[in-house]
Amino acid sequence: MRVAILGATGYGGAELVRLLRRHPEVTITAVYGHSQSGKPLAEVFPHLMDVDVEVEPFDASDAAARADVVFTATPAGVSHTVIPALLERGVRCIDLSGDFRLKRRETYRQWYGKETAEEALLARAVYGLAEWFADAVRGADLVANPGCYPTATLLGLLPLVKEGLVEDDDIVVDAKSGVSGAGRSPGLATHFSEVNENLTAYKIGVHQHIPEMEQTVTAVTGRAVRLTFIPHLVPMTRGILATIYARAKAGVTERHLREALVAAYADKPFVRVRPAGVVPRTKDVYGSNYCDLNAFFDARTGRAVVVAVIDNLVKGAAGQAVQNLNMMMGWPETLGLDLGPVFP
Amino acid sequence: MRVAILGATGYGGAELVRLLRRHPEVTITAVYGHSQSGKPLAEVFPHLMDVDVEVEPFDASDAAARADVVFTATPAGVSHTVIPALLERGVRCIDLSGDFRLKRRETYRQWYGKETAEEALLARAVYGLAEWFADAVRGADLVANPGCYPTATLLGLLPLVKEGLVEDDDIVVDAKSGVSGAGRSPGLATHFSEVNENLTAYKIGVHQHIPEMEQTVTAVTGRAVRLTFIPHLVPMTRGILATIYARAKAGVTERHLREALVAAYADKPFVRVRPAGVVPRTKDVYGSNYCDLNAFFDARTGRAVVVAVIDNLVKGAAGQAVQNLNMMMGWPETLGLDLGPVFP
Amino acid sequence: MRVAILGATGYGGAELVRLLRRHPEVTITAVYGHSQSGKPLAEVFPHLMDVDVEVEPFDASDAAARADVVFTATPAGVSHTVIPALLERGVRCIDLSGDFRLKRRETYRQWYGKETAEEALLARAVYGLAEWFADAVRGADLVANPGCYPTATLLGLLPLVKEGLVEDDDIVVDAKSGVSGAGRSPGLATHFSEVNENLTAYKIGVHQHIPEMEQTVTAVTGRAVRLTFIPHLVPMTRGILATIYARAKAGVTERHLREALVAAYADKPFVRVRPAGVVPRTKDVYGSNYCDLNAFFDARTGRAVVVAVIDNLVKGAAGQAVQNLNMMMGWPETLGLDLGPVFP
Amino acid sequence: MRVAILGATGYGGAELVRLLRRHPEVTITAVYGHSQSGKPLAEVFPHLMDVDVEVEPFDASDAAARADVVFTATPAGVSHTVIPALLERGVRCIDLSGDFRLKRRETYRQWYGKETAEEALLARAVYGLAEWFADAVRGADLVANPGCYPTATLLGLLPLVKEGLVEDDDIVVDAKSGVSGAGRSPGLATHFSEVNENLTAYKIGVHQHIPEMEQTVTAVTGRAVRLTFIPHLVPMTRGILATIYARAKAGVTERHLREALVAAYADKPFVRVRPAGVVPRTKDVYGSNYCDLNAFFDARTGRAVVVAVIDNLVKGAAGQAVQNLNMMMGWPETLGLDLGPVFP
Repeated sequence: MRVAILGATGYGGAELVRLLRRHPEVTITAVYGHSQSGKPLAEVFPHLMDVDVEVEPFDASDAAARADVVFTATPAGVSHTVIPALLERGVRCIDLSGDFRLKRRETYRQWYGKETAEEALLARAVYGLAEWFADAVRGADLVANPGCYPTATLLGLLPLVKEGLVEDDDIVVDAKSGVSGAGRSPGLATHFSEVNENLTAYKIGVHQHIPEMEQTVTAVTGRAVRLTFIPHLVPMTRGILATIYARAKAGVTERHLREALVAAYADKPFVRVRPAGVVPRTKDVYGSNYCDLNAFFDARTGRAVVVAVIDNLVKGAAGQAVQNLNMMMGWPETLGLDLGPVFP
Repeated sequence: MRVAILGATGYGGAELVRLLRRHPEVTITAVYGHSQSGKPLAEVFPHLMDVDVEVEPFDASDAAARADVVFTATPAGVSHTVIPALLERGVRCIDLSGDFRLKRRETYRQWYGKETAEEALLARAVYGLAEWFADAVRGADLVANPGCYPTATLLGLLPLVKEGLVEDDDIVVDAKSGVSGAGRSPGLATHFSEVNENLTAYKIGVHQHIPEMEQTVTAVTGRAVRLTFIPHLVPMTRGILATIYARAKAGVTERHLREALVAAYADKPFVRVRPAGVVPRTKDVYGSNYCDLNAFFDARTGRAVVVAVIDNLVKGAAGQAVQNLNMMMGWPETLGLDLGPVFP
Repeated sequence: MRVAILGATGYGGAELVRLLRRHPEVTITAVYGHSQSGKPLAEVFPHLMDVDVEVEPFDASDAAARADVVFTATPAGVSHTVIPALLERGVRCIDLSGDFRLKRRETYRQWYGKETAEEALLARAVYGLAEWFADAVRGADLVANPGCYPTATLLGLLPLVKEGLVEDDDIVVDAKSGVSGAGRSPGLATHFSEVNENLTAYKIGVHQHIPEMEQTVTAVTGRAVRLTFIPHLVPMTRGILATIYARAKAGVTERHLREALVAAYADKPFVRVRPAGVVPRTKDVYGSNYCDLNAFFDARTGRAVVVAVIDNLVKGAAGQAVQNLNMMMGWPETLGLDLGPVFP
Repeated sequence: MRVAILGATGYGGAELVRLLRRHPEVTITAVYGHSQSGKPLAEVFPHLMDVDVEVEPFDASDAAARADVVFTATPAGVSHTVIPALLERGVRCIDLSGDFRLKRRETYRQWYGKETAEEALLARAVYGLAEWFADAVRGADLVANPGCYPTATLLGLLPLVKEGLVEDDDIVVDAKSGVSGAGRSPGLATHFSEVNENLTAYKIGVHQHIPEMEQTVTAVTGRAVRLTFIPHLVPMTRGILATIYARAKAGVTERHLREALVAAYADKPFVRVRPAGVVPRTKDVYGSNYCDLNAFFDARTGRAVVVAVIDNLVKGAAGQAVQNLNMMMGWPETLGLDLGPVFP
């Protein structure tokens, strides 16, 4: 199958190239980019030196002629302007940006401060949290690939809220991310000397991934929730760890919590529930498509705690996008994704 | 004044040397250590090359003959065996370990899994959270220097609970620490290749600093509380950031929260409340005795959030110990502590 | 083909597991270890959670019954005691330690301070610098896998000395390594707080990889050389960068130097010579079996400079060992090694 | 004494503020900056929250009215345009940029690609390598503060070349620097995700500090030299380590080399020669004005090796500038610089 990548000069795009060039069913036929078009991709990303392809300016007709599927790894507010033309030409799209994740335009406007697609198109997009919406993904021609924070948070939280083990109205998510999540555009907030040996919180209560998480909890449980969510920037390149705190319902123990995780992911190849008492670490999934999880119960305070880790650029972006491709095509879910974590 | 340091071969001890040798009223007359006694301190810590002192095996009579004040920077379970002999000989003691922080032996036993001092001696110890118990510290001959996590957490939380701005029964503290807090003894959990580019949680719900924080909240408010507290290990050397989540009482806004912080620390030289909306970062206090703080209000969920940062080895250990020394002696609180943060 | 790994609880062993479990022609039938035998490998290395194998105590008969090839990833001084029994039983061996690299016992004794195998067995071992000794490796039953520093250094240096572009008697190699090269045993020298944000040199002029490099230069050129070699420890986990300085012969220019590199590696899939003027970076080969190289000429001083980078655990250890396996078996050199570098 | 700082919004400027505000003889009366003028300095640098000063646009008359000494911590090519007006008004200047270090305009042009001051003014500038040109600094009204690489390299190299222990024509300097040396302007080369866990060389043979080092060796020895110099970028914030390789003259041993270092710096408070065999580490001087040094002899190859470490922002910039101020004023050399290294 022929695939093209729009936004190949960002980190998410580069990861797509790393994964898709090893994918046995896929050929990358075009990579598109804006600022660096005309350059060999190997000049933009020296680690891809052995990939012989040039970055081209995007054109929907060209993409439709050369690809059956297009991945859009663009900044917020871009993909919704190009995807309609691709869909019209029969090209399937997997969007790694936030443009198609929220079902209501008004919500997007409010949290992103921008415009996005018509609601009809938003309705057509399937939210590609692969472990939870597999059936919908299978028939989709437009997949909204989840955000990095929502992937880690929802994989940890959904089993608990679905099984009714925790109170909906007392959930705190304290998330920590490596710096690659901020992308490749230089700025003071990602300047090495400012970030290294430093730790901070940001976008307190206003991160655009919040409505995405709330909408998805509602999609699974039918109940509205409000999450307190604070992301933190950690001096490392890759990895997200989400610590999820929720008040447990009466009688719930650690065993119930862990059983809910185990049951939810029994047949899911990319989610690994750790043995009781073992805390997941980000490095244990580095470079891979795994999400490692575990649940704990603080009996003194009655709080359930789930710790979930992913590699933000793989399971939190490019890897999950390939997983969605596999499901759309009816291929084995793990095709091309058998990458062991790189440790240490 | 003559001071001695017991446990000078650990990181806390080395920081005491860094601070005390510049202190205008103090002379370090002896440094004691166990495993490396007989060595020049400059061999144990090459950065202290210009400090001409040898590590000696500890002896209480010797210490009493040579020092007016002894700092004990020892592992848990050690200082309570040596401090009684020092106090009997009229030596004042500032203990950087956990041995004298908890007022009830049984609580210590439960959380530390060890024995500590008699309760009469525990009662005599003053908890040296300098900004909150200055009067008691002034008359003390035994100060229990606070733990690193409690220092950051309590400086952020106490103004809110004292002023009754938040509910007592819904408090979550998500704390993140650099690795130096784990001390200088090598082990797999602090091995560079295991920790670097890695992030994890540990001691979920069972960290020994929990009863210290709860006891201190009660000391200030008169009310019992239970905190959900989870520490995380971050791939950096120094720094603690505590993110404190609490349900705000009705009508409370960010302004109320920030005013409580500002009022609590108006005349406290080492606590800096950031301007509204500015998030503290650990690097902004690196190497200094500052605690930087700010409060936020997540109106959607009704949660108050405080972010507090310290250098765990300075304000969280050696720096606060010197601050306590200054207060015990009636010297200016900042004497010898005018260290600007080292940034970047 | 059935393979076993001795020393699977170290970093080199874990990398072998990562690579070999994806290798299409190989089944891992046993992993042996000393200190942690009896434990599931997934407990020793949580990132290998989905690998269902237990660490066993090593026994040569057992290994010979269960494996056709054994990889020995043991500390210096161990493999020479177990490999003879394996060879006698017809098992092929690939040794990742230094025990079989030096041809003269006396040299090993001098640089390693230990005993190693009989010289007859040392003579039988083929030095597995894959790009330079492919023919010998093809027929070998015992391969001495090169050290990490020699791999980077020799790949950079050999084309120049072989072509006679530089003087043999004026070569300086300044090498820099990430910390994973020091292995998984904790110690003060690899303690996070000591290494992070720190940089030092070590084993100045006495590193045990020196005779390995000199012996190999002689093997290729027929001329004796003496290298000045100093390794440095850099605060990162993976990666070696070797900066090689040599006095160029009269008339030599950057073009000659680069042409020698290009010619030497024209058909070598794992060596990438960068375009003129582009400096290799360690992260561009992270997690992969590549060695990236380039040559420069400092016309003012007449010095040739080669910069070579590898991932010390892949091309510098486990990856090259698998490459050697492929060559021993007559399989394509890249089988199971098509791992794109993980960047960023 | 009243001092002003031009370029206070860069890292060198911020370090000057950190040091000078604790200096007992100095008051900072103005800080000047270009891009951020009008802002409180505490907004530009939150760690300086307790410094109540605003960044102002520079004006020479204003500076001359308010300050006796001006520090210029500006990018290359700027200070030579403002210093003449300050000198005319009787203000002493300490320039932290490269504009006044090279004595010949043509050399500056060639290596910096820009214009600088008239040669008469260049002649008036005293090169402020404090340990070597103290007498000249004492009478100076214009000091060219040395570059970071030259400071580490020259302190290590000068004793050897002055005493004639090594050959002049076979010197290689392999230098490694933390990222803060690249300044505070964001760019891809200093973007966290590109630099972290990465290592590279840069400006091979063309770094603008090369002529500065060669000129100074000539100033001390009277002999022309050519250095092979390659800088490397290391994933840490602060610190430079220079590894200096030189062919030793016949009969020279490690003892001679170390004695030359010890003799050169016997009465120099900021240079610490390590005990025989001990390798300096950058973290041992972190945040301080020390340069730690040691010499080694590789008897096999006849090479002398010196390893020198500094904190690039202190001894390599702001600290040495304050040291120069002290010497210009006839104050004790260490005034305001009694900062113990921050370790770990």
